[in-house]
Amino acid sequence: MSSDKQQVSNAPTEEELACLDAHWRAANYLAVGQIYLMANPLLTESLRPEHVKPRLLGHWGTSPGLNLVHTHLNRAVKARDLQALCIWGPGHGGPAVLANSWLEGSYTETYPDITRDAAGMARLFKQFSFPGGVPSHVAPETPGSIHEGGELGYSLSHAYGAALDNPDLVVACVIGDGEAETGPLAASWHSNKFLDPVHDGAVLPVLHLNGYKIANPAVLSRLPREELDALLRGYGHEPVHVTGNDPMTVHRAMAAAMDQALDRIALIQRTAREEGGTERALWPVIVLRTPKGWTGPAEVDGLPVEGTWRAHQVPLSGVRDNPDHLRQLEAWLRSYRPEEFFDKDGHPREQVLACVPEGPRRLGATPHANGGLLLRELPLPALERYAVPVDKPGASMHEPTRVLGDLLENVMEATADRRDFRLVGPDETASNRLQAVYTASGKAWQAQTLPVDEHLDHHGRVMEILSEHTCQGWLEGYLLTGRHGLFSCYEAFVHIVDSMVNQHIKWLRVTRRLPWRAPIASLNYLLTSHVWRQDHNGFSHQDPGFVDHVLNKSPEAVRVYFPPDANTLLSVADHALRSRDYVNVIVAGKQSCFDWLSMEEAKAHCARGAGIWDWAGTEDGSRAPDVVLACAGDVPTQEILAAAQLLRRHLPELAVRVVNVVDVARLMPQEEHPHGMTDFEYDGLFPPDKPVVFAYHGYPWLVHRLAYRRTGHRNLHVRGYKEIGTTTTPFDMVVRNDMDRYRLVMDVIDRVPGLAVRAAALRQRMQDARQRHDMWIREHGTDLPEVADWTWDG
Amino acid sequence: MSSDKQQVSNAPTEEELACLDAHWRAANYLAVGQIYLMANPLLTESLRPEHVKPRLLGHWGTSPGLNLVHTHLNRAVKARDLQALCIWGPGHGGPAVLANSWLEGSYTETYPDITRDAAGMARLFKQFSFPGGVPSHVAPETPGSIHEGGELGYSLSHAYGAALDNPDLVVACVIGDGEAETGPLAASWHSNKFLDPVHDGAVLPVLHLNGYKIANPAVLSRLPREELDALLRGYGHEPVHVTGNDPMTVHRAMAAAMDQALDRIALIQRTAREEGGTERALWPVIVLRTPKGWTGPAEVDGLPVEGTWRAHQVPLSGVRDNPDHLRQLEAWLRSYRPEEFFDKDGHPREQVLACVPEGPRRLGATPHANGGLLLRELPLPALERYAVPVDKPGASMHEPTRVLGDLLENVMEATADRRDFRLVGPDETASNRLQAVYTASGKAWQAQTLPVDEHLDHHGRVMEILSEHTCQGWLEGYLLTGRHGLFSCYEAFVHIVDSMVNQHIKWLRVTRRLPWRAPIASLNYLLTSHVWRQDHNGFSHQDPGFVDHVLNKSPEAVRVYFPPDANTLLSVADHALRSRDYVNVIVAGKQSCFDWLSMEEAKAHCARGAGIWDWAGTEDGSRAPDVVLACAGDVPTQEILAAAQLLRRHLPELAVRVVNVVDVARLMPQEEHPHGMTDFEYDGLFPPDKPVVFAYHGYPWLVHRLAYRRTGHRNLHVRGYKEIGTTTTPFDMVVRNDMDRYRLVMDVIDRVPGLAVRAAALRQRMQDARQRHDMWIREHGTDLPEVADWTWDG
Repeated sequence: MSSDKQQVSNAPTEEELACLDAHWRAANYLAVGQIYLMANPLLTESLRPEHVKPRLLGHWGTSPGLNLVHTHLNRAVKARDLQALCIWGPGHGGPAVLANSWLEGSYTETYPDITRDAAGMARLFKQFSFPGGVPSHVAPETPGSIHEGGELGYSLSHAYGAALDNPDLVVACVIGDGEAETGPLAASWHSNKFLDPVHDGAVLPVLHLNGYKIANPAVLSRLPREELDALLRGYGHEPVHVTGNDPMTVHRAMAAAMDQALDRIALIQRTAREEGGTERALWPVIVLRTPKGWTGPAEVDGLPVEGTWRAHQVPLSGVRDNPDHLRQLEAWLRSYRPEEFFDKDGHPREQVLACVPEGPRRLGATPHANGGLLLRELPLPALERYAVPVDKPGASMHEPTRVLGDLLENVMEATADRRDFRLVGPDETASNRLQAVYTASGKAWQAQTLPVDEHLDHHGRVMEILSEHTCQGWLEGYLLTGRHGLFSCYEAFVHIVDSMVNQHIKWLRVTRRLPWRAPIASLNYLLTSHVWRQDHNGFSHQDPGFVDHVLNKSPEAVRVYFPPDANTLLSVADHALRSRDYVNVIVAGKQSCFDWLSMEEAKAHCARGAGIWDWAGTEDGSRAPDVVLACAGDVPTQEILAAAQLLRRHLPELAVRVVNVVDVARLMPQEEHPHGMTDFEYDGLFPPDKPVVFAYHGYPWLVHRLAYRRTGHRNLHVRGYKEIGTTTTPFDMVVRNDMDRYRLVMDVIDRVPGLAVRAAALRQRMQDARQRHDMWIREHGTDLPEVADWTWDG
Repeated sequence: MSSDKQQVSNAPTEEELACLDAHWRAANYLAVGQIYLMANPLLTESLRPEHVKPRLLGHWGTSPGLNLVHTHLNRAVKARDLQALCIWGPGHGGPAVLANSWLEGSYTETYPDITRDAAGMARLFKQFSFPGGVPSHVAPETPGSIHEGGELGYSLSHAYGAALDNPDLVVACVIGDGEAETGPLAASWHSNKFLDPVHDGAVLPVLHLNGYKIANPAVLSRLPREELDALLRGYGHEPVHVTGNDPMTVHRAMAAAMDQALDRIALIQRTAREEGGTERALWPVIVLRTPKGWTGPAEVDGLPVEGTWRAHQVPLSGVRDNPDHLRQLEAWLRSYRPEEFFDKDGHPREQVLACVPEGPRRLGATPHANGGLLLRELPLPALERYAVPVDKPGASMHEPTRVLGDLLENVMEATADRRDFRLVGPDETASNRLQAVYTASGKAWQAQTLPVDEHLDHHGRVMEILSEHTCQGWLEGYLLTGRHGLFSCYEAFVHIVDSMVNQHIKWLRVTRRLPWRAPIASLNYLLTSHVWRQDHNGFSHQDPGFVDHVLNKSPEAVRVYFPPDANTLLSVADHALRSRDYVNVIVAGKQSCFDWLSMEEAKAHCARGAGIWDWAGTEDGSRAPDVVLACAGDVPTQEILAAAQLLRRHLPELAVRVVNVVDVARLMPQEEHPHGMTDFEYDGLFPPDKPVVFAYHGYPWLVHRLAYRRTGHRNLHVRGYKEIGTTTTPFDMVVRNDMDRYRLVMDVIDRVPGLAVRAAALRQRMQDARQRHDMWIREHGTDLPEVADWTWDG
């Protein structure tokens, strides 16, 4: 931030105040118009029922507050020539943000048919919440937005994500007092302990206390002032208050508060950047108290509305049928004096636009809100450099995530100057064995440090906080503003962000259809410490269902990978980090696991997504196999190979095919997922009339849900996690869930025609092995030696 | 709380302090023993490798802190004759809580084979984290616990749930500094704005700052003292600090802090109960700062361990193979001087037990932690009183949730004195049209009220906070302590608690197998404002996948219902509220919907869970139907009936069967879910060789995942939500997702053999109707009159 932005601004003159007020009134008028009108936008004639939409949908209550913030951000941005972005937490106030975008011209630039005149205004009004039009919320369709106004709780973490590694950016963030009650929001206040005033931009939270949610008072709005201030100071912020319901008084106070807050931000940044200060400062927060539905109807049908929860959505609901409501609506609209800010053709007058900044400085036109425009290719190294050598399958072992950690160290290193890659995770980077990255970047940390601490770094780009919500919010904000990243998480606890990833995938689904939105880097999950290896924790840490959850969402934006070893993990991670506009879920173990494929084989296998492992089977190519052993996931792959080995030894005449699936969407019909195999391909891998015994990493029925349309589906038999577990050994886990090698061999015997009799002795032997396991483990607490020491002898 | 509990306690004498310290040391010894030993529990001989477990699993770091809290709670409970319960947030410190339970005798009472002597101690040690033994965390198996120590974030909301309507109970709640970073925990601090000091008990949070998580410093532990105090005051608490690493100093400070906090609680309660005070007081919170892994090895292999993250799990990891580690472990164990607190037979000496309370006052023996023991039948009224009259199907309309609201009002009323029923929800009770309950009980609220507010009540039992996490945590705590409740939530946003419900279902799965755990009331969800009716909000509010999520979990504990009208909702809700040990998910609309079944028919239909609606089809009973139209959910039911009506009118010769499914688990094989139909039953409803066109409320593939094993699965064609939506009309939503009546008729024509040619004209007519809809809606913004005015003419 250059020094001229750091000077204390002058208080606005009366003339400037009049312009600000005109802008605010214009925005309010446009917000009401969107909720109600489908014709007569300038009120050139008296309002008649047919001018009003048949279905009144939208949220008025928060709109005047958002308009106030937008107006005053305009002023500050223009006065200081700021790069700014605003996150509209109360994003159901869509009419407000759309109104401002239309006023400043960014809306018409994005959607040329919505012109900045009466005709365009009519279209702006009608399209809002109208079938075939635009959603009622701030949405992907809204210029200047990276934050869907749907579910609440993520505004502040999105704001921090956007500010990271954007030293010249100020991210304002309006937080509604409803949203402030949510857990994700409450946790994210502490993000300021992770914000580097040197390399990161600033976040300016505006806590908007309009007092009510849908039907209840908001908790924070009913705290005594000293208690609220204590809370905000406890969060690491210095509060600046703006309170009132007289517009001019509030304009004066808000202009002063913005100046005070931005001056303070400039001072903090100057201290850190020019004087090398490392003490964490209290960042400003603006506390804005204005009435809900401010300037709307004070009373409707004898009940108070302005300043109450009744102003939340549509204050006058019977406008088409109730002449009183119609009159009230017209009076409300005219109270803004539209003739003062629109000329007769509906163009905004000069005075109204006096506070509006130019070009990309406008909040609706900042490239930071269309991050794909700023995105650069991530410098990824050649995988061969990190590949583990594999001369023959199963001859060595590695911890896949540790190998990946070496690759990520390189990415961290290669982006040391660019600073456009971050690794986030809830206190688990080292536990997940990715700690090599610390060589290239420490962990972001601005709070106190002690001599015994390791890897904490004021300027670090590894982010660890014990809040999956905050991690997810940071990363989403970072990606949406055009950067790259990876979220490493315990598999079971990624469900904590189920609802957040829903919203992100919905966002991607819509943006993929908007030509003006440039593709952004994918949101990459590395799920490790997975269901089969919860030796320390047991049942509460076992849940492989995140995959099921994301596969319910738009297939165009969802990819799921189960790399079975270190080299396949490298290949999949490389692919994910290069991709755009996806959510990539990679499930991989951190425990030592056999190396099956060389780097070259891994790349080819991952490119196919699923394929036959010739070396593991006993097909001779002259006929179809008798049975297919299929697997997805590291532990299932090991059990399937162990089963294949048992079959080769004991039933050498059986033609066994082994298929490994990395990309489970390959199992889906091609009409349902872009990665889906054709039936021809599928039937080639899994001959329809042959039994398939499939060991899958997660809930077995997921495989059925993916493959139910396949011709051979009747012959598909899937083993997986059946929600049975405790603190026990790895092999005991697969035995309890019937996915162990012995059970898989029994499954083959039970399903290949004619084998039940021929292989009865082998079946008994498998049964005995399972019993031997049960007895051994209860006595020794460890796995059978024959299991613990198992190796592939192929 | 009687007045003698309100007196300031005397500071402990030196002798008492010695007893407290002995108890603490004994508990520490037993915690270490559980992590390491499988023999030689009293160290009667020198420690040898074979005394040590082959796999070292567990969490030492938090254990000494938990032991300290337990010891001092013992003292306070005994001195004041308190009813107390403790929630152990850092529940991975299982060894600590197990140690205390064994010491006080509650463990042996629950598990008689773990005797309170050397033999029992050996079993206690060996079973810990050992295959076939007990989990490493505080778990359902742990006496005195209602809180699994797995995922973090829910301790404080569980504590509040337990305290509600338990005026004589003090619920202590240990919150780890890691857990304190999570969103759910951060949000739940504000629960004190909802706690009634008259009818509810007290919650005493103990924020345990041991400084580190798995690998990182904890944020709160690194705040300056004044910032932390501000935060806690902002949360509505008065902090009481205990800091130190010298045991006797800490004992003195902790005893004083407990007394100060409990005196303050008594004063707050007395003021509210005896003097009628209604001003919200600042409740106490104890801030306990002690080293992580306190009293454990200071250094291991030259690196500091005590007081650092390295103490998190197992400080000495190589004990069996590394003689230095073995020596260090023995020295560590002997440092507690076990001979002072165990006699030669391993019985705890009298001095050690001096602080332990008697009988059900012991934390491991309180009936509040085995809530089923305290549970009373909920007084539910006869449903006929609330039933809507239905002389013939589809002749009237009601809002189902509003009808349910009348029933819930009665339940609220009937429990006015007992106070064992609560309704929770995130600010949506009225939006979900359950507001009749306010007649019987207001909304719990202890913060400021204004004249314009409605239904706020210091003593209310409706709980509304805009945090699904807090709602869920409150209700879980309430149910686990033996009461009843219902959570009403927007369908899409219940995903916010995916991870919490996982843990609750896991808890139920385990407790169902523990004979000493009495069944508790089910956790009942009413999911409304569902995917098909997001007129105001659109795409971001559309997600029917919670059902998919819970159906992945243990079938014995999960029930899912889709009542299609008001009377079936009454029947299902009645069943759910009477049930035990389930998670019941009820999906029902709040919008006006046709009444299909009389109360009597509804009861019979819900009891079957799925059945033929004779009146809706055109079967004559002489032969199998040509096609089955099936439906689950209110909107799908309406579309299926509209399709049936079209078919009856235009293809009267077609034998159509209509099947409505309320309980979707009926579709599953009986081996996979207790409600699953036999194949005989299923094939009777859905003849295997006939096409089934199924309109389902949620993601269509869920029905395939449930029914894939059925003989007729190939003929099953499911329509549902395909993740397509925006702000639009109800009928446009079903058209976009291909679940509208016209599409369903086309599906029938495409699937019934021979119909494609015979009914080509009808098919074209359906196609035309869909196009007419598209054009109409874009112009008028409303649904086609023929759709908006549709009625059933059967």
